[in-house]
Amino acid sequence: MASITSVSPLAPKSFPDLPVIEGVRFASAAAGVRYAGRTDVMLALLAPGSTMAGVFTRSKTRSSCVRDCQSKIGTDSDEGAAILVNSGNSNAFTGAAGDGSVDAICKAVAQTTGLPQSRVFTSSTGVIGERLPHQRIIDKLGDLHGALDAGKAHEAARAIMTTDTFPKGAAATIALPGGTVKIAGFAKGSGMIAPDMATMLVYIFTDASIARADLQSMVSAINDRSFNCITVDSDTSTSDTLLMGATGASGVPVTPRDTAFAEALETLFLDLAHQVVKDGEGATKFVTVTVTGAASNADARLHAMSIANSPLVKTAIAGEDPNWGRIVMAIGKSGADADRDRLTIRFGDLVVAENGWISPSYKEEDGAALMKKQDITIRADIGLGAGAATIWTCDLTHGYISINADYRS
Amino acid sequence: MASITSVSPLAPKSFPDLPVIEGVRFASAAAGVRYAGRTDVMLALLAPGSTMAGVFTRSKTRSSCVRDCQSKIGTDSDEGAAILVNSGNSNAFTGAAGDGSVDAICKAVAQTTGLPQSRVFTSSTGVIGERLPHQRIIDKLGDLHGALDAGKAHEAARAIMTTDTFPKGAAATIALPGGTVKIAGFAKGSGMIAPDMATMLVYIFTDASIARADLQSMVSAINDRSFNCITVDSDTSTSDTLLMGATGASGVPVTPRDTAFAEALETLFLDLAHQVVKDGEGATKFVTVTVTGAASNADARLHAMSIANSPLVKTAIAGEDPNWGRIVMAIGKSGADADRDRLTIRFGDLVVAENGWISPSYKEEDGAALMKKQDITIRADIGLGAGAATIWTCDLTHGYISINADYRS
Repeated sequence: MASITSVSPLAPKSFPDLPVIEGVRFASAAAGVRYAGRTDVMLALLAPGSTMAGVFTRSKTRSSCVRDCQSKIGTDSDEGAAILVNSGNSNAFTGAAGDGSVDAICKAVAQTTGLPQSRVFTSSTGVIGERLPHQRIIDKLGDLHGALDAGKAHEAARAIMTTDTFPKGAAATIALPGGTVKIAGFAKGSGMIAPDMATMLVYIFTDASIARADLQSMVSAINDRSFNCITVDSDTSTSDTLLMGATGASGVPVTPRDTAFAEALETLFLDLAHQVVKDGEGATKFVTVTVTGAASNADARLHAMSIANSPLVKTAIAGEDPNWGRIVMAIGKSGADADRDRLTIRFGDLVVAENGWISPSYKEEDGAALMKKQDITIRADIGLGAGAATIWTCDLTHGYISINADYRS
Repeated sequence: MASITSVSPLAPKSFPDLPVIEGVRFASAAAGVRYAGRTDVMLALLAPGSTMAGVFTRSKTRSSCVRDCQSKIGTDSDEGAAILVNSGNSNAFTGAAGDGSVDAICKAVAQTTGLPQSRVFTSSTGVIGERLPHQRIIDKLGDLHGALDAGKAHEAARAIMTTDTFPKGAAATIALPGGTVKIAGFAKGSGMIAPDMATMLVYIFTDASIARADLQSMVSAINDRSFNCITVDSDTSTSDTLLMGATGASGVPVTPRDTAFAEALETLFLDLAHQVVKDGEGATKFVTVTVTGAASNADARLHAMSIANSPLVKTAIAGEDPNWGRIVMAIGKSGADADRDRLTIRFGDLVVAENGWISPSYKEEDGAALMKKQDITIRADIGLGAGAATIWTCDLTHGYISINADYRS
């Protein structure tokens, strides 16, 4: 297993103060799933009346707990809900035994909390292909239930880390006509534990009162513009999960038409998504790729993803090389429409290339100076239409190779 | 520019003896396009009666000389043909000036050789976005024409190298009912010159007599099973070009029904394609990815490409880690159909995973021993149908990062 001791240079200065979300309590414990000397399991319990929504990996080889969550998330219920997450073992590609572990944990959580099993959601992250020692988790459920505390979200965020170099949290308070509501969330991702693949897990809670279908539509739409717009290395985990619960404890009703809430939620999703990129394996640069002028939004996304996933673009950024030729290459290979002579490439506001060639105003030293920054913005205008998309990524460095190649399992 | 001084550990022991192909002569020269102290331009001249075929990059931002070749390749002609290639500057993304350089070179080659301009094909490889100093090339045309020699294919192969660590050649002699025919070819690719992107150029010649349409259909079909089945880093050059000429000098007619010829040609294409992978930037392992049992051949190709391009799979191979979980991940994200519980994963003949989990017969030390080899075979059976595909690639190492990031342009 790779040893990662230093915090990412792109990490925020500190973990934010997460406000108490009335109707949700958290607990964490050290169950010894794989790690020693740290917490590795967290329980979140949501009060009766809470609604739940979720989005999940599209992998065809997704894990048992993802399939189980997907089977439960789409139904209305007046019951509360529980979320149980372990780190250290992803219970992915463990065949029928994996399904059995999920069932055993859900049954035990249901017994401990008094909830029906259909309201227990689980996630696992860590080593793949090894049987989950689920009894170790079940043995801790009594302790976890006894320790539930509305103020323990930060500890929960730490318990779900694998080789993340920092815990990731975000919060918002929104004044609405009907009263004030709060949102708090945390995530893990882009750390690596041999031989797993950088699973992203996200849990978000609000005391707003939101109907399940409304919550799901907001979560799905905003997820498409945030977590689905980040890439570290183009690889997709079998376990990616985002769950959001709305307790309604504030008594303030919210619908997707409440733009102040929707905007705050999107800012929070983006904040967490960007933190995942900033903990990307080996990352030293945070990169925003914005494509405009494409024939469609879908084409813009193809171009932006092609740029953001190109190893040659990502290594150029690591080398602080204003290598616009590689951006042209990535646009050319994306599969979406492009015309060499209509492209405009900018680093930040600096026009680098236009009309099929380097801009007459461009000076290499200006581009080189921009590339020395920690935050890099690449802008490509395709010159064909009104399609636009933004993707966030990081650079590709020796650190990535060290984390993922320089060990034996 | 990256400095690459050592030959790839995967290089063949020596450049093969390329037989003389009657009807083709070669010459090379040092025109000083970018490099000092080495040849950087080559001319191949094919006798009247030669037929030509070609395949080209599908990039939407392809270079001027690729567009020019494409406009000329599809027409019949009794004239000979000339191929003029320079290294050091790719003349890509150079706007209207780039088109002018191609026209100037083609016109000059036509004048020197007496051919119509429509029978002059050019390629350029090297730095992108800089104006091609085409006059330096034109100034050498007289010398090149005077030095043409049927035995100089090896020298031509060297002149088109950029940062390839070895020249790449392959040959075949085929006894057909009508007589013996020969094929000889050479390629460059996967070396890197800042800020260009590992262009692949391939030139193949035979003394068989083949109608243009027949030659094109063979080249297109075999290219789909060889050069289109290799990947180093998923990035696509704006300049990739393969040209094949058949001089007919042997007097032996060949059609696509001559399976002995077609098989020899495919073996030669594969040999050159594998040599390009073996010169992949930073490569230390040659990897064959074979997918069977997919719902269709197209699905099998998606799965195999997803495995071969996955940074997590490629770094695991670099680390000699038998990390089958990352292969499951790559299959899951490919977009093609898969069912976790029907997958079978093998390293060589060793069954690693089956029925949704690790194989009961698998021992980690057996997998680890296989990963120490220089040639690695990954086999995935999807268990859904009869679709199959094979893709060849290399590992992802610190060498790749060093070549592509550790310099300033």
